[in-house]
Amino acid sequence: MNGYTKKCLITGGAGFIGSQLARRLLLQGCEVTVIDNLFTGSKGNIYDLMQNPKFTFLIHDVTQPFWGQFDEIYNLACPASPIHYQHNPVETIKTSVLGIMNMLELALKTKARIFHTSTSEVYGDPDVHPQPEYYWGNVNTIGIRSCYDEGKRAAETICADYLRQYGVDVRMIRIFNTYGPCMHPHDGRVVSNFIVQALQNKNITIYGNGQQSRSFQYVDDLLDAIQLYMALPRAKVERFFSEKGIAVPVINVGNPGEFTIRELAEMVLALLPESKSKIINEDLPKDDPKRRRPDITLAKELLGWEPRIKLSEGLPKTIEYFRALIKGN
Amino acid sequence: MNGYTKKCLITGGAGFIGSQLARRLLLQGCEVTVIDNLFTGSKGNIYDLMQNPKFTFLIHDVTQPFWGQFDEIYNLACPASPIHYQHNPVETIKTSVLGIMNMLELALKTKARIFHTSTSEVYGDPDVHPQPEYYWGNVNTIGIRSCYDEGKRAAETICADYLRQYGVDVRMIRIFNTYGPCMHPHDGRVVSNFIVQALQNKNITIYGNGQQSRSFQYVDDLLDAIQLYMALPRAKVERFFSEKGIAVPVINVGNPGEFTIRELAEMVLALLPESKSKIINEDLPKDDPKRRRPDITLAKELLGWEPRIKLSEGLPKTIEYFRALIKGN
Repeated sequence: MNGYTKKCLITGGAGFIGSQLARRLLLQGCEVTVIDNLFTGSKGNIYDLMQNPKFTFLIHDVTQPFWGQFDEIYNLACPASPIHYQHNPVETIKTSVLGIMNMLELALKTKARIFHTSTSEVYGDPDVHPQPEYYWGNVNTIGIRSCYDEGKRAAETICADYLRQYGVDVRMIRIFNTYGPCMHPHDGRVVSNFIVQALQNKNITIYGNGQQSRSFQYVDDLLDAIQLYMALPRAKVERFFSEKGIAVPVINVGNPGEFTIRELAEMVLALLPESKSKIINEDLPKDDPKRRRPDITLAKELLGWEPRIKLSEGLPKTIEYFRALIKGN
Repeated sequence: MNGYTKKCLITGGAGFIGSQLARRLLLQGCEVTVIDNLFTGSKGNIYDLMQNPKFTFLIHDVTQPFWGQFDEIYNLACPASPIHYQHNPVETIKTSVLGIMNMLELALKTKARIFHTSTSEVYGDPDVHPQPEYYWGNVNTIGIRSCYDEGKRAAETICADYLRQYGVDVRMIRIFNTYGPCMHPHDGRVVSNFIVQALQNKNITIYGNGQQSRSFQYVDDLLDAIQLYMALPRAKVERFFSEKGIAVPVINVGNPGEFTIRELAEMVLALLPESKSKIINEDLPKDDPKRRRPDITLAKELLGWEPRIKLSEGLPKTIEYFRALIKGN
């Protein structure tokens, strides 16, 4: 880019996905600023980046305004696993809603392109399967998951309105279940749960009968999609969604390969033959979505992207990460 | 109450419903403070109250914090008709979301009981008919109505979480289509539209074929329900919703009598035989909900309430209001 160094801001950049995105953007020569309140993010995830002169880390909560000069903003701040987002539901929905408002105001002020991470949770407990972007979802407004689900839905609305009303160049991805190195070891998500339980020879807990299905996307596939999306010229993005009859740029990104929770548990155990863990069943929590699988037609067409990394390839890498993390503790 | 004067705050108190609520509460002996940014509210609606020493009016926008000492808070601030809420969608969703956050913070600080006006719009374009409170709705997150619908959904979530997390005594009503004196004459709603058009001998515009149904509730019925609800002891409210398996206090309030838009137009014309208006048809706007009718079982059981005023009684009163308003202009 003729010697110009692109300046990127990542909110939640000390978290699972944000920290890996920061590492990539630095390798590609960008200046990267990470803001994170360290509620679920960890300095350990970005420790290796701290000495890089192009990297800046600031403790900052996105519910408060943040100003600076950036070309691209990646809004990834929000506790994303039930165990974390239910810890303080009021702060969760504030993080979602006030966080995106503050980042859109920053984008507006600095003319930055902005990426917003939405989630498959906007589909709730879907009665359409798999879920295309056209599907409006089935979500409870007053349940114990609502702080996350409705917070994320309202954040999409706010993005759509800043685009329509102020012309902000915002692009959203509804991320489906994603796993990989740098996941929080105690976030209560199924992949990290099962691996950590198996490594520690504890019983592997399945909620319900384990027949509920999930899609599992390896983090590198997601990062590829985010970067392909953000690199597209605005005119191309606008034309694409206009032709599709979708009001604003939003695509599903996930791995459509469907596995039951029980299958996942069995794969983890097969990859760790030395583990003494057994599979046990517990009651399903309230409002737990039964089935979720992305329709990724739009992402394929727009980005020429599809997931490359199979569960059988991604799981061993994730296991190695957790093995090292647990040894290090 | 042994000489104690109850202090009430009404946000949006210069609007259609808020101003009528203010008038009632004053008649009942309460001290009433109204805050309103006068975007859709009008000083004309509360002009007769201005000399009452128990009445205070302040221009204030609920997106900003507001502090005072109150026993009861009635959160009615939000443009509610498409023509108004789509004028500035970003402010609409901020009004909904930041407004309720600010009022819940005030309720928390002052230990006030708080009433929040939700809406039948949280059901969106329902695939269940009539709609019970258990129904989760069918709402688009990124359409041109989303600033209102999703803003109101997120506001419900925020109420639910302040109740669960901080114990705020919050009570919500999902208000279905309501009409009556003090409606905004140019809010684009079907009742005011038809009456004003008929009074001015303009054509009565029906969007679509006019077979979409609506329920029409006279404002006095709604005010009765709000007051019965707010007067209930907290323990009774909690027990009721707990027995019903509903997470937090939220009830539908509306008139289940169903009329098509065409029937309404014909009733208005029949009540104004001198009008030279004719009925014409125009295209249905995007995302317009097709059908909406309240299941009011819970309101009946909890409040011993049901609507008393028929459309054939309420329409003439509303016509008289608009006749005087138009003459006065």
